[in-house]
Amino acid sequence: VEPDAKIESDDAREGEKETARLEAFSDGVFAFAITLLVLELRVPHFDESHGEVSASWLSSALLETWPRYAAFAASFLTILIMWVHHHSLFRLVRRSDLPLLFANGFLLMLVATVAFPTAVVGEYLMTPAAPTAAILYVGQQVLLATAFLILLRVAFRPSSLSPSAPAAMVSRLRRSYLFGPPLYLAVLVMAPWCPKVAMGISLGLWVFWALVPTSPKRAHGGH
Amino acid sequence: VEPDAKIESDDAREGEKETARLEAFSDGVFAFAITLLVLELRVPHFDESHGEVSASWLSSALLETWPRYAAFAASFLTILIMWVHHHSLFRLVRRSDLPLLFANGFLLMLVATVAFPTAVVGEYLMTPAAPTAAILYVGQQVLLATAFLILLRVAFRPSSLSPSAPAAMVSRLRRSYLFGPPLYLAVLVMAPWCPKVAMGISLGLWVFWALVPTSPKRAHGGH
Amino acid sequence: VEPDAKIESDDAREGEKETARLEAFSDGVFAFAITLLVLELRVPHFDESHGEVSASWLSSALLETWPRYAAFAASFLTILIMWVHHHSLFRLVRRSDLPLLFANGFLLMLVATVAFPTAVVGEYLMTPAAPTAAILYVGQQVLLATAFLILLRVAFRPSSLSPSAPAAMVSRLRRSYLFGPPLYLAVLVMAPWCPKVAMGISLGLWVFWALVPTSPKRAHGGH
Amino acid sequence: VEPDAKIESDDAREGEKETARLEAFSDGVFAFAITLLVLELRVPHFDESHGEVSASWLSSALLETWPRYAAFAASFLTILIMWVHHHSLFRLVRRSDLPLLFANGFLLMLVATVAFPTAVVGEYLMTPAAPTAAILYVGQQVLLATAFLILLRVAFRPSSLSPSAPAAMVSRLRRSYLFGPPLYLAVLVMAPWCPKVAMGISLGLWVFWALVPTSPKRAHGGH
Repeated sequence: VEPDAKIESDDAREGEKETARLEAFSDGVFAFAITLLVLELRVPHFDESHGEVSASWLSSALLETWPRYAAFAASFLTILIMWVHHHSLFRLVRRSDLPLLFANGFLLMLVATVAFPTAVVGEYLMTPAAPTAAILYVGQQVLLATAFLILLRVAFRPSSLSPSAPAAMVSRLRRSYLFGPPLYLAVLVMAPWCPKVAMGISLGLWVFWALVPTSPKRAHGGH
Repeated sequence: VEPDAKIESDDAREGEKETARLEAFSDGVFAFAITLLVLELRVPHFDESHGEVSASWLSSALLETWPRYAAFAASFLTILIMWVHHHSLFRLVRRSDLPLLFANGFLLMLVATVAFPTAVVGEYLMTPAAPTAAILYVGQQVLLATAFLILLRVAFRPSSLSPSAPAAMVSRLRRSYLFGPPLYLAVLVMAPWCPKVAMGISLGLWVFWALVPTSPKRAHGGH
Repeated sequence: VEPDAKIESDDAREGEKETARLEAFSDGVFAFAITLLVLELRVPHFDESHGEVSASWLSSALLETWPRYAAFAASFLTILIMWVHHHSLFRLVRRSDLPLLFANGFLLMLVATVAFPTAVVGEYLMTPAAPTAAILYVGQQVLLATAFLILLRVAFRPSSLSPSAPAAMVSRLRRSYLFGPPLYLAVLVMAPWCPKVAMGISLGLWVFWALVPTSPKRAHGGH
Repeated sequence: VEPDAKIESDDAREGEKETARLEAFSDGVFAFAITLLVLELRVPHFDESHGEVSASWLSSALLETWPRYAAFAASFLTILIMWVHHHSLFRLVRRSDLPLLFANGFLLMLVATVAFPTAVVGEYLMTPAAPTAAILYVGQQVLLATAFLILLRVAFRPSSLSPSAPAAMVSRLRRSYLFGPPLYLAVLVMAPWCPKVAMGISLGLWVFWALVPTSPKRAHGGH
């Protein structure tokens, strides 16, 4: 092994270890944020002054809380899709530095709070307070889309981007992330007037985000 | 080292790193789901209007909550056994892609909620609401068995399966996972009429699942 | 590289990866169990019917909850010391199999519940209910010491023990873990009569456990 | 490969694996502590005796809890910055031993509790109880700065410090960590008299801590 190649390889290994710890920390936050959602599911409590507990009471008590299950599933899928995106981005990153740590931290802060607007929507979408709930939810989507755009811009600087990152994938991600913030801003403007439509579009966009990111395999191009 | 071998080895290493992050994320969810169960154990609160606190009051207050301890232990063992299965499956996987990420995500979503039906059963199995509680618990087992079957089908596609996976183990896992959903469906049909028997069979099946997965050592065959 | 050496090294690497995932999962449980303790610390709530909130009210409200801080610190140190032990044990393990997974799982289940008896002691040690609280706490120590002994026995089977494990360290750990269960059983017998002495001995033993495990460096002997 | 070089490299690898597990455990605690903060955000509950729920009620209910959002963001950024520091320190560490495990454990214990004083400040800074809240917050900063100083002293012993650690970075970190405890002690003395100024300085210092740590890239000097 030549000295130069050795130094370069040590450097690459160091950079990889670097990124590995950042990914592990991020995975921890994603994993906890996704698991913490389960705290929203609560065992129905029977008030003994209502007579005898019965199978039909428990059934209706469980069914009544369907908005919590829906909110749980929606938050879970949202975080899962964001994790897939985070994963795809970081596969293209070679080296982490301070701006990347903070761009990533800003995103994680928003990921950690996903459960909150979802729970507010689950509680209030069927009430006259729906506009406020929808504004809160879509507002957080604007922030999330912005945080992903910032992370992409920081991660794709020449000093961070892996030289082996496939150019087609890099430009595809660049393009699709650019759409995010204006798209959600448009939905946000609509939210006070038609909160349910705004929510429908926001949730539908997650299907789009689930499909946009290239699967790791396709990212390799010709392999 | 020949160029071709180098590329292949880089690819293998890349695939391994890929799977490693997926496993780390899954481990996070498993570890967190299993630890979060402890929130079900609560310090008995003494109501001062009941006179003086005493050792016998605390003893009976602690013993009274035995269904919570039983539910905790059952949930813990369940998640532990599922982790062992997840572990066994992923030792045979070489490469992750989008379908695997989502199949795995669907399983993790169910893993994260294991505590919920268990807690409902712990609260209501001894009451007239037992049928509903048993339906909820066995219903989740149906979903879990289905999620494991889907994950296995996705993980054992030729593009994901490791070429070094022992054929005997692969076919054994294929066979036993296929039994899962119909088995639990049969128990589900029985649950409204004999909820305690249905719960007994469901819990007993976990002993079966604990033994079925080949220990990592035996999976290696002759080594 | 000779073929035989290659196979052996692949095997070793496989075994290492195996153990690595088990350690990562265990670390997750340790880390969450230790962090979850913070939920015991609660912001004092001011009841507005008691007049005006004041600095002295907040001071005394915070100071009044000192048993919670003490319980938090004790649980934290306990889990930290157990993590160090777990760490030391697994540095000597080469290969994981089903018995090791379950022995480890049994230990993790107890680790996850450490906060519970500690909180009960923090709440009731100064009341007439102290004997029950002490029995619960010391009883869990008996289970923990037994779980560590079982884990050691399983981990130190010839098929699991790393061939490079220093013999002196192996026999030292074997010896000290054997003392655990009878020691705590003796304290348990004493707990109903002198709960505070039993608690003092139990907590004091943690200092012993903190010092017994060889530092990783000394474990290497002559290196 | 010469035998000596082989042993040295094995040793280095062992030491790296060692440190890796310590970092993974610490990352778990950091990630969990940072995610757990989200439990402070609660869905506003509508009391049905107050008439009809409305969008304006929900808006004001959400806006009213702004101190919780501010406390959440402050705690999140604080833990993130501490993670960056922890990260920078451990990149310079080659080998972990018992003192390092305990110095790190002491720091993690404080990291895990960051949410608590922040929540107390969020609740009471605008009330007459502000001095107590500020003392609690700044008091924890004193402990945190001390824990970081202890960790640095333990991590930078010759037996732990990586021989490849850039001398300029080591001495810079040594210098800046030494300032921490006396600086926060001075703020603590001021806290009872001007709690808001003390809080402002404490929060402002986090900006300083965010900038002081060298980015990983700059740490490599000439590379």
